[in-house]
Amino acid sequence: MKPIVETVRWSGELPGHVVIVDQTRLPLERVELALRDVDAMVKAIRTLAVRGAPAIGVAAAYGVVLGVQGLGDTEAANVVGVAQEVGATLAKSRPTAVNLFWALDRMKRRAEREQRAHAKGPAIIAALLEEARAIHDEDRASCRAMGEHGATLLPDGCAVLTHCNAGALATGGMGTALAPIYVACERGAKIRVFADETRPLLQGARLTAFELHEAGVDVTLITDNMAASLMAAGRVDVVLVGSDRIARNGDVCNKIGTYGVAVLAREHGIPFYAVAPLSTFDPRTETGADIRIEERDETEVTEGLGRRIAPPGVKVWNPAFDVTPARLVTGIVTEHGIVLRPTRAKIEALLTRAGIDVPGTRGA
Amino acid sequence: MKPIVETVRWSGELPGHVVIVDQTRLPLERVELALRDVDAMVKAIRTLAVRGAPAIGVAAAYGVVLGVQGLGDTEAANVVGVAQEVGATLAKSRPTAVNLFWALDRMKRRAEREQRAHAKGPAIIAALLEEARAIHDEDRASCRAMGEHGATLLPDGCAVLTHCNAGALATGGMGTALAPIYVACERGAKIRVFADETRPLLQGARLTAFELHEAGVDVTLITDNMAASLMAAGRVDVVLVGSDRIARNGDVCNKIGTYGVAVLAREHGIPFYAVAPLSTFDPRTETGADIRIEERDETEVTEGLGRRIAPPGVKVWNPAFDVTPARLVTGIVTEHGIVLRPTRAKIEALLTRAGIDVPGTRGA
Repeated sequence: MKPIVETVRWSGELPGHVVIVDQTRLPLERVELALRDVDAMVKAIRTLAVRGAPAIGVAAAYGVVLGVQGLGDTEAANVVGVAQEVGATLAKSRPTAVNLFWALDRMKRRAEREQRAHAKGPAIIAALLEEARAIHDEDRASCRAMGEHGATLLPDGCAVLTHCNAGALATGGMGTALAPIYVACERGAKIRVFADETRPLLQGARLTAFELHEAGVDVTLITDNMAASLMAAGRVDVVLVGSDRIARNGDVCNKIGTYGVAVLAREHGIPFYAVAPLSTFDPRTETGADIRIEERDETEVTEGLGRRIAPPGVKVWNPAFDVTPARLVTGIVTEHGIVLRPTRAKIEALLTRAGIDVPGTRGA
Repeated sequence: MKPIVETVRWSGELPGHVVIVDQTRLPLERVELALRDVDAMVKAIRTLAVRGAPAIGVAAAYGVVLGVQGLGDTEAANVVGVAQEVGATLAKSRPTAVNLFWALDRMKRRAEREQRAHAKGPAIIAALLEEARAIHDEDRASCRAMGEHGATLLPDGCAVLTHCNAGALATGGMGTALAPIYVACERGAKIRVFADETRPLLQGARLTAFELHEAGVDVTLITDNMAASLMAAGRVDVVLVGSDRIARNGDVCNKIGTYGVAVLAREHGIPFYAVAPLSTFDPRTETGADIRIEERDETEVTEGLGRRIAPPGVKVWNPAFDVTPARLVTGIVTEHGIVLRPTRAKIEALLTRAGIDVPGTRGA
């Protein structure tokens, strides 16, 4: 296997800079962008040059370092103050990415902790780089762990169908749904992947097909409506998808089209797995019915492909996500192992074991 | 309801010309093309300015008239000879459209029959226009009959999902799958239609959304992968699709993506109907497994939308059709009525009643 694309990395020590793969140029050009200040990072996040919740969290953490590294031999209070300002600026770059706020909050708390421990300015700056690297390392390790667990589901020679992009391009590591594929391929297994193009925004065609092809994985692109025929022809052995949110009962919210793939998988007796870290589980969301589905602008459907494809004035329905009920989910692959046939009780137990606060249980 | 788009028509008497809606300009511009000679008709068919098997048949029949109407007061043999030459030229305009060959053969036989009856040249030319008009009228009547039968399935206020374009733009009349919608709307029913965009070639977005919107029918465009969510939300009452070929056992071959819609309809308890004239049934095709599915060029997937959307070198699978097994088909709406829960015996009986040769049955 060739190297997996590295979506975001810190280059050098202090002072250093961030290097990202410019996802606005994919899939036709692979261009790296060097980000040397906070403005450049905000712009990269805002323009989707870097996207995917975990990848944004890692990038923003490094963004805080970009904001403070030039302060030199300054006072601790100044570093903490600038880190807070920079964090507030970065937090405005995307509206809904939970990982962004989580990573920025963690950076802020590290700065404050160092200040309370009487660290000097330069030491706090060094600690912030250490913290950003830790966030990145943990994300990388989490992806790797999902990959190791998920790879046990992929025998040599099997064919995987995936939807949207839950790969290296969305994380600081080897991805979520694509991680098991990378791990299996690293170990020498021959895995064949079919990528749904994933209308309207074509993340499957633009990103999944790109990163798998770059890594030397055998990938075939199909339009979303070909998955049923592919399954009927016996050419899909397992479905792997990512998730944006998993409800307490195991309902899986993910990119629009995922639910249809799950119904088709069940019809054809094909196992359907979601791959997601524990941070994706929301114990405060009882079921998928509680998730408000974002409806996006109709031009994504009518004009999102380079030219207008529908008559002016026609109505469009454009939900960004859908919910796959737990009964259609064969299992959820996490960094802590696989939850087969997910239920509320199994998910509560998993989260509690991992030390996550689950409201309404004895542990909380 | 506003008028339904007229895809092809003969203008004037003799000499006259053919007027078509230029489908290469849809959905952004509604431009009519006047076709005054055989070359113009061949070009229109070849460039898909007119498409859809029944519409091509009607257009080609008129094309024969275009080829002979300028012969003036010539001998009968000359008219018949030119009609044959013109027919051979028109037959080369598209490779697989059965209706094209059928219509041209019927025009040729009419010319020969007139010659045998000692008609003079001008009378044969007039007879050929009469024959082309008859082909057109019969197609129009067949569409209307499918619409009348199918409208009984559409109660006031119901919501229909359709896939691809099986409408007026594909026929000489009001279409197949869309005919029941037009008839119900004519009668004052409020019908809401959801149109799958139908990747890769977007016939749903470009054509179905266009013709329904033009006729004043309430139509909403979705991407193919949104159909499952729409059904889960209880927003689809019935699915209507066309067909390219129906096997003797009731298996329905149609545009890629139809099979997936049928599986989803069954999962959500929604009736799924194919709407097709008897000429679509092929009693020589025992089951859908006997139908060879055309695989088309990968650029339809990677570049069909105005710009390249996938990385160079990535593999593509691009089947143009799929097969929906009879067990998922609630019924087939024909111009002779509706076959509910289609079986081999029911289809043989339907075809035999209509005087169609069914090999291996007592009638044949």
